[in-house]
Amino acid sequence: MDKEEKNIGWKQRLHEIIYEADTPMGKWFDILLIILILFSVLLIMLESVKSIDAEYHNTLLILEWIVTILFTIEYFARIICIKKPTRYIFSFYGIVDFLSTIPLYLSYILAGSQVLLAVRAFRLLRVFRILKLVQFLGEASQLKSALKASRAKITVFLFAVLILSVMLGTLMYIVEGDEAGFTSIPTSIYWTIVTLTTVGYGDIAPITPQGQLIATIIMLLGYGIIAVPTGIVTVEFGKRSKKGSGDESVEHFVHVNTQACPVCAKEGHRDDATHCYNCGSILNE
Amino acid sequence: MDKEEKNIGWKQRLHEIIYEADTPMGKWFDILLIILILFSVLLIMLESVKSIDAEYHNTLLILEWIVTILFTIEYFARIICIKKPTRYIFSFYGIVDFLSTIPLYLSYILAGSQVLLAVRAFRLLRVFRILKLVQFLGEASQLKSALKASRAKITVFLFAVLILSVMLGTLMYIVEGDEAGFTSIPTSIYWTIVTLTTVGYGDIAPITPQGQLIATIIMLLGYGIIAVPTGIVTVEFGKRSKKGSGDESVEHFVHVNTQACPVCAKEGHRDDATHCYNCGSILNE
Amino acid sequence: MDKEEKNIGWKQRLHEIIYEADTPMGKWFDILLIILILFSVLLIMLESVKSIDAEYHNTLLILEWIVTILFTIEYFARIICIKKPTRYIFSFYGIVDFLSTIPLYLSYILAGSQVLLAVRAFRLLRVFRILKLVQFLGEASQLKSALKASRAKITVFLFAVLILSVMLGTLMYIVEGDEAGFTSIPTSIYWTIVTLTTVGYGDIAPITPQGQLIATIIMLLGYGIIAVPTGIVTVEFGKRSKKGSGDESVEHFVHVNTQACPVCAKEGHRDDATHCYNCGSILNE
Amino acid sequence: MDKEEKNIGWKQRLHEIIYEADTPMGKWFDILLIILILFSVLLIMLESVKSIDAEYHNTLLILEWIVTILFTIEYFARIICIKKPTRYIFSFYGIVDFLSTIPLYLSYILAGSQVLLAVRAFRLLRVFRILKLVQFLGEASQLKSALKASRAKITVFLFAVLILSVMLGTLMYIVEGDEAGFTSIPTSIYWTIVTLTTVGYGDIAPITPQGQLIATIIMLLGYGIIAVPTGIVTVEFGKRSKKGSGDESVEHFVHVNTQACPVCAKEGHRDDATHCYNCGSILNE
Repeated sequence: MDKEEKNIGWKQRLHEIIYEADTPMGKWFDILLIILILFSVLLIMLESVKSIDAEYHNTLLILEWIVTILFTIEYFARIICIKKPTRYIFSFYGIVDFLSTIPLYLSYILAGSQVLLAVRAFRLLRVFRILKLVQFLGEASQLKSALKASRAKITVFLFAVLILSVMLGTLMYIVEGDEAGFTSIPTSIYWTIVTLTTVGYGDIAPITPQGQLIATIIMLLGYGIIAVPTGIVTVEFGKRSKKGSGDESVEHFVHVNTQACPVCAKEGHRDDATHCYNCGSILNE
Repeated sequence: MDKEEKNIGWKQRLHEIIYEADTPMGKWFDILLIILILFSVLLIMLESVKSIDAEYHNTLLILEWIVTILFTIEYFARIICIKKPTRYIFSFYGIVDFLSTIPLYLSYILAGSQVLLAVRAFRLLRVFRILKLVQFLGEASQLKSALKASRAKITVFLFAVLILSVMLGTLMYIVEGDEAGFTSIPTSIYWTIVTLTTVGYGDIAPITPQGQLIATIIMLLGYGIIAVPTGIVTVEFGKRSKKGSGDESVEHFVHVNTQACPVCAKEGHRDDATHCYNCGSILNE
Repeated sequence: MDKEEKNIGWKQRLHEIIYEADTPMGKWFDILLIILILFSVLLIMLESVKSIDAEYHNTLLILEWIVTILFTIEYFARIICIKKPTRYIFSFYGIVDFLSTIPLYLSYILAGSQVLLAVRAFRLLRVFRILKLVQFLGEASQLKSALKASRAKITVFLFAVLILSVMLGTLMYIVEGDEAGFTSIPTSIYWTIVTLTTVGYGDIAPITPQGQLIATIIMLLGYGIIAVPTGIVTVEFGKRSKKGSGDESVEHFVHVNTQACPVCAKEGHRDDATHCYNCGSILNE
Repeated sequence: MDKEEKNIGWKQRLHEIIYEADTPMGKWFDILLIILILFSVLLIMLESVKSIDAEYHNTLLILEWIVTILFTIEYFARIICIKKPTRYIFSFYGIVDFLSTIPLYLSYILAGSQVLLAVRAFRLLRVFRILKLVQFLGEASQLKSALKASRAKITVFLFAVLILSVMLGTLMYIVEGDEAGFTSIPTSIYWTIVTLTTVGYGDIAPITPQGQLIATIIMLLGYGIIAVPTGIVTVEFGKRSKKGSGDESVEHFVHVNTQACPVCAKEGHRDDATHCYNCGSILNE
C-alpha cells in the first residue's frame, strides 16, 4: 500500500510536470518542449531546401532521429501518467502528437511515404497547447471571443461570397476564352476569388475589353466586400473593449490555472476548483 | 363542388410543399432542391473541364438530362399550383427558373447556343430563394440592413472613384507608352482600377520612372480610399449592434414565417397574418 | 437706362441658367452639360483605341469638333454673364474649363501636341462642379467632412510610410541584386510601396532567401499598416454618425442652395442669404 | 572663472541651437538639417541609377563629400556641446548619426564596402528626431499611443498568423510540386504570406486543381484575417477620440517643449520643468 502510494505519487509528479505549468519543473518542461518543437520544424524546413539537404543530409537525419525519439518518449510518458490513457490518445492533441511522431518510422516501412515527412510540420499545432500560459491572457482570449462572436455573421458572408464567385466565374468563362487562361469553370472561379480578395496573381488575367470590364466590376465589388468582415470584427472588438471598462459585462471571466485533470486531461479549471468540471475526479492541489 | 374542393385541396397541398417550408414535406422538398441545384452546378463545372468532359461526356449528359427534366417538372408544378401563374412567371425567381431550365433544350434547336449552357450556373441564384429559412435569421438580415443603409454613401464613393480612375488612367496613358501595355485609355483605366483596388495583376505595369511615380501615388491613394467603404460599413454595423441591445431601436423586427401567398406568391408574412399583405388573399393556415 | 436694365436682365437670366440650378432652365442646362461632358470623354476613350480610331477617325474628329465648339461657346457665355470675369477665369474651374477646351485648337498650331488631346479627359473634373445638386446632399458632405477631419492624421501617417518605404527600399536594393529587378534605389522604393500597399504586381519580386524574408516582413507590416487609415476614417465616420442622431452636435449644417454670386461666382449661399458672403454683392432671388 | 562661464555660455548656446527648437536659431538649424538630409538621400538615390551615375559620377561624388563633411562637423558639434558625450554617442540617434556619416570614409579604407554606401539612406531616421516639432503634435502622439496600446493584441495575432503560415506553406509544398515554384518549405511559406496578405505577386502560383482549392481557402482566410488588426486599431482610435472630448480621460497630456537636457540629452520635458526628469540636471531656460 505504501509502495502503491509512492507509485501514484511518482505518476502524479510526472503528470504535474508534463500536463501542467504551475510548478517550476512544469514550466521548464514546457519551455524545453517549445524549443524542441521549433527546432524540429526548422529541421523539416532545412531538409526541404535541396541545396542544404544535398550537403548536410546525414546531419539532418541524425538530428531528426534524436528529436523523434524524444517525442516518442514524451508520447509514452503522457500515456503512462494519465489515469485514463484513451482519453488522451483519442483527444485532438493526442492525435496531433501521434501523427507528428510516426512519419519518420513509417518512412522506413512504407515506400513513397517520404511525403508524409512534411506532415511533421503539424507539430507546430502542439505549440498552441503549450501556450496554456498565454492562451488565457486577456489579449488572446479577447481576440478569440470576438472572433467566436463574429463566426455566424462571417459564415453567412462567406457563403454569399462563394455563390457570387461561382456565378461571376461562370460569366468570365463564357466571356473570356481559353487564350486568357480561363480554361474551365473551376479555374474561372479560382480567378474570381483571386480577384475578389484583391490578391491578383496575374497568372490568369482578362484580355478582351468586355472581360476587363467585368473584372473591373468584380474588383470594385471586392473593394466593398472587404469592408464587411472588417466591420463585423471591429464592432465585436469594440463591444469587448467597452465591457472590460464598464460594469455592464454579460460574460464573466474567472481566473483559470494550467492544471489538467489527472483522469480525463481536461484543462481550464478554476483556481479554486477541487473537482474536475468534466469528470468529477479530484484534482491535484 | 366536392370534387372542386378536393382539387383545390390538392393544389393547396402542393403549394405548401413547393412554396413554403413550415411542413415536414415542405422542408424535405427544399433540402432536396438545394442538393439538386448544387449537384447540377457541379455537373456544369465538370463539363467545362476538358479532360473530364472527354472521358465522361455521355455520363455527364445523361445526368444533366435527368436534372433538367426534374427542374422542368418543378417549373410546371410551380405554375399549376399557384392561383395567378403570371405573377410567378414574370417574377424575378420565375425568370431565373425559366432561364436555368431552358438552355439544354435550346442547345438542340439552335446551333452555337452551347455557350448558353453555362448560363445554367445561374441556378445558384435559386439557392437564395430556398434559403428562406436562413434569410430571416438575425445574422443575414442585420448584414443586409447595414449594407442597405450604407448604399447611398457607397454609391457616392464609387462614383468619385470612377471619375478619379478615368482621369488617372488617362494620365498614365499619356505618360506610359504602348510598350508597357497602356495601349488605350480604356486599358489604362482598367489598370488604374486594378491598382487602386490593390489587386495588382502585373499583366500591365509601368516601366518609366515617371509612370512608376504616378503608380506609387495611385497605390497610396488606394490605400487611403479602401478605408472609406470599411468606415461606412463598420459604423452601420456598430449602430445595428447597439440597437439590438438597447431599447432605443427604431426598426422593429417581427417574426415572419416561410409561407407564400397562394395567389401572388409574395413571401415574408407575419406569423399571425391571415391575409396576404400584397394582394389581400386569404393565406393557408 | 431702360435698355441697360434690359441688358442686365438678359445677363442675369443667362447667369441663372449657367451658374445655378434653381430654375428649370438651369437644371436642364446642367443635365445637358453632364451628358455632353460624359459623351466627350467617351469620344476621347474611343479615339485612343487604335482599331476604332483607324476605322472611324473622321467621324470621331467631327464629333470632337462639335463638342469643342459647344464648350467654347459655353466658356465665353460664362465670361460674358458674370460681372467680374477675371474671378471666373482664374478660378480653379475657370482654368479647368480653359484647359479642357484648348487642346483641339492647339493640335493644329503646335506639332507634337497630340498628346495634349488626352488632357481633355480632365473635363471630367467639371462634373464635380455641376454636381452642386448632389454635393450638398448629406451623404457626400458627410464623407467630405469625415475625410477632411482625418486629413492631418493621414498626412502624418503617409509621411511615416514614405520614410519607411525609402529605408526598406534601400535595404532591398542592397540585399537583392540587379537580376531580381531591383536595378536602382528608386525602383526598389517603387517595389516597396507596391508590396506595402498589397498591390503586388510581380514585375519585380525577390529571389534570394534573405530578400524573401525581408519581403515577408514588409508584407506583414503592410498588413498592419493598412489598419491605420481605416481606423482613422472609421472613427471620424462614427463621430459624424452619432452627431446626426444626437443633439450634442458641434458643427451646424445649414441648408445651402445652388445659387452663385453674379459678381464673384462664389457658391454655397444660405437659402435665406440676400448678400454674397464673400464679396457682399446682392444675390439674385 | 569668467572665461569658464563664457565658455559654458558658448556651449550652452550651441546646445540650444543643435538640440532644441525653441529659439529662432534652433528652428533654422533644424530646417536646414532636414533639407540637408533629404538632399543627401536624393544623392544616394541618384547614384544608384546606373544611367545617371555614369554621366554625373564626379558631380555626385563631390556633393556627397560636401554633405558628409557637414554631417561630420555636426556630429562633433553634438559631442562637444553636451555635458556627458557618452550619453549621446551610445544613444539610438547617436549611433544612427555615426553610421550614416562613416560609410563614405570606410569606402576608401575597405574594399567591397561600396554596399555600405547605401546604408547612408538610414540618415532618414534622423528626420524623425528633428521632427520634435511635429512629434508632440496631437495627431502623431494619438497615432503612436493607439498603436502602442494595440501592440500586445497585434503581437498575439501575428504569432498566430506565422504558425498558420508555416503549416499552410508545408501543406502547399506537399500538394504542389517543383514545377509550380514551390521548391522548398521556406519558399512555400513565403508564398503563403504573399497570399494571406493579399499581395499576390504571381511569381509563384498553384497550378494543380487541389493546390488552387487550398489557395482559395487561404485567400478567404486572409480576407477575414485582415479584419483583425483593423478592428484592433480602430477600437483603440475610437477610445482615444472619445477621451479627447469627454472628461473621463485616464491618460493626461501635458504640454512638452522641444528642450533637451544639456547633460543627458533626454527630451520631452514639461513646459514648466526646471530639472531634467531623467538625470535631475538644471535645464536651460
